[in-house]
Amino acid sequence: MTAPILKNDIFLRSLMREPVPYTPLWLMRQAGRYLPEYNETRARAGSFLALAQNREYACEVTLQPLLRFKLDAAILFSDILTIPHAMGLGLDFLTGEGPKFAHPVRHEDDVKKLVVPDMAKLQYVFDAVSLIRKELDGKVPLIGFAGSPWTVGCYMVEGQGSSDYRLIKTMLYSRPDLLHRILEINAQATTEYLNAQIQAGAQAVMIFDSWGGVLADGLFHEFSLAYTHKVMRGLIREHEGRKVPAIVFTKGGAQWIEQIASIGCDAVGLDWTANLAHVRQRTADSVALQGNLDPMALFGGEAAIRAEARRVIDDFGPVKNGGHVFNLGHGISRFTPPEAVSVLVDEVHTYSRAMHQN
Amino acid sequence: MTAPILKNDIFLRSLMREPVPYTPLWLMRQAGRYLPEYNETRARAGSFLALAQNREYACEVTLQPLLRFKLDAAILFSDILTIPHAMGLGLDFLTGEGPKFAHPVRHEDDVKKLVVPDMAKLQYVFDAVSLIRKELDGKVPLIGFAGSPWTVGCYMVEGQGSSDYRLIKTMLYSRPDLLHRILEINAQATTEYLNAQIQAGAQAVMIFDSWGGVLADGLFHEFSLAYTHKVMRGLIREHEGRKVPAIVFTKGGAQWIEQIASIGCDAVGLDWTANLAHVRQRTADSVALQGNLDPMALFGGEAAIRAEARRVIDDFGPVKNGGHVFNLGHGISRFTPPEAVSVLVDEVHTYSRAMHQN
Repeated sequence: MTAPILKNDIFLRSLMREPVPYTPLWLMRQAGRYLPEYNETRARAGSFLALAQNREYACEVTLQPLLRFKLDAAILFSDILTIPHAMGLGLDFLTGEGPKFAHPVRHEDDVKKLVVPDMAKLQYVFDAVSLIRKELDGKVPLIGFAGSPWTVGCYMVEGQGSSDYRLIKTMLYSRPDLLHRILEINAQATTEYLNAQIQAGAQAVMIFDSWGGVLADGLFHEFSLAYTHKVMRGLIREHEGRKVPAIVFTKGGAQWIEQIASIGCDAVGLDWTANLAHVRQRTADSVALQGNLDPMALFGGEAAIRAEARRVIDDFGPVKNGGHVFNLGHGISRFTPPEAVSVLVDEVHTYSRAMHQN
Repeated sequence: MTAPILKNDIFLRSLMREPVPYTPLWLMRQAGRYLPEYNETRARAGSFLALAQNREYACEVTLQPLLRFKLDAAILFSDILTIPHAMGLGLDFLTGEGPKFAHPVRHEDDVKKLVVPDMAKLQYVFDAVSLIRKELDGKVPLIGFAGSPWTVGCYMVEGQGSSDYRLIKTMLYSRPDLLHRILEINAQATTEYLNAQIQAGAQAVMIFDSWGGVLADGLFHEFSLAYTHKVMRGLIREHEGRKVPAIVFTKGGAQWIEQIASIGCDAVGLDWTANLAHVRQRTADSVALQGNLDPMALFGGEAAIRAEARRVIDDFGPVKNGGHVFNLGHGISRFTPPEAVSVLVDEVHTYSRAMHQN
């Protein structure tokens, strides 16, 4: 079977630093609770997990934002905690509380029992990828994703979200051997998981290191970046005769941009605290950059949204060979008015055309 | 009345970049819930506010950590929200929920009513400073403090802590004029407040910009740093015949270190994500640096605490003229075992002596 021709490959070309007519954009968590149609599907599915584990539902919500907005990429609807769930940690999403594991990994015995899960347990994810690719019918590329070994490890050890990361950091400082073992397993599982997504049809992959920025300088490199690097080294880099670009996003990571850019990824995602001009200078256009509008700018009304979008595009500066993918600096807020996204898409596409004619 | 001679002025001298025999240290939130004696006093006071508003209690808890540990500075026990409380916003500390305002500042009418409070309403703070200075009897210097106009503004608009700063950022993006008005009033109030603390006996002052790092690049400069700069410009810089050094701490601010260092402060506080060697290079020793151990390192046991303390001292590098004040990168956790602090103090004092003989 031959895949249908990709009608809009501007996202992929910008990641590969090839000439493009405008700055492509997509939004982290673009399929999500700010869309009434998403909430309707989720209600039908019954729970977040049921939604993520059913390929028809996952496909439906993945496509929803593309029906409303002229986005340049789709991203698989799933969760970064599918891997530890497949490891048997017992994931649940409690209403209003976020994800929680019944069996967190805290003691030496828990760590000893931990193994790379059989990817068959994650077949529902790969099935969703295949179905979405089919339904997209070449409209825009599909992004697959996973959490970074460290970020997923945070949830595995803490058992849930945390404000101080006390449990995993206690392990890091007192029993680094245990944490290294967890991260090693996570890195291997993440590599297999992303490769299976690529083989199922993901045309780009993104690694979310959402909590890399809570680590101390030096320890970020040892406990987060080193394991993301391992994943990068094991990734399939070409599929269906085309390069599969990889994006690494570390929230709070702009300080370490040179090191992040050097692990073999094609693009680095940045949060809104980063100055794109400085980051671009520091990485000397060796990677593409993705970002970095403050998700809260979408609450400012039309004039502010347009002005802030232009600020991001201007910060990146004149474009010759792609290299910029517009995005938010973090996931879109559930309280965002959907009309704000229409304004943003319009402004990014319209305003950036001028930058690309320079 | 002449003030007693300061027996240990190493903290002040290090801030002024004068030669010192070792790296001085104190800990953010050193008078706090990790100390059983603090909890005992707090229970006697009845509430956090009662504790902070009574000069005898405030003095008692300020001195508690100095009785246990050889710290090189005391810091006034108080809260960054005393100013908006004096503005009439109705501060309360709900058990397990943190601070909350009965009357947050969200609408144009709220902003119009806002005025710089009469400093007489904050006399209890200045009384506490005077009493603490007296009781310290020259043992170590006393630090006064305030929140930055932006950080205090976050609480005033949000009404409490926030994970996304949606309300204040909605104001920032949609009605920047209202936010500028709030910040202007906060800057003026903060200047008067810190100057009154200095006149009451504070020998150094610190401005906590705890939430500056949640702002987008550029907007940090406009909505946080510009107002901290205003405070700096209005501060009394000499008192009792001695320079009163000012420290500015922006959590997540290392990216903007050059700009922060240029607003006239004597020292910049840094969180644990910053690399002190890089920051020192970027600021070319034009300011002292304060920080930056991860507070969670104190959970790692003795060997890890000593190793991580040495890492911070080594990162700063050889010292000729002071310039480093050891601290945590954020407040000490309430779960910290007090013995961990003893180990830290010992290691910092002992290990750093060698650096100062270079």
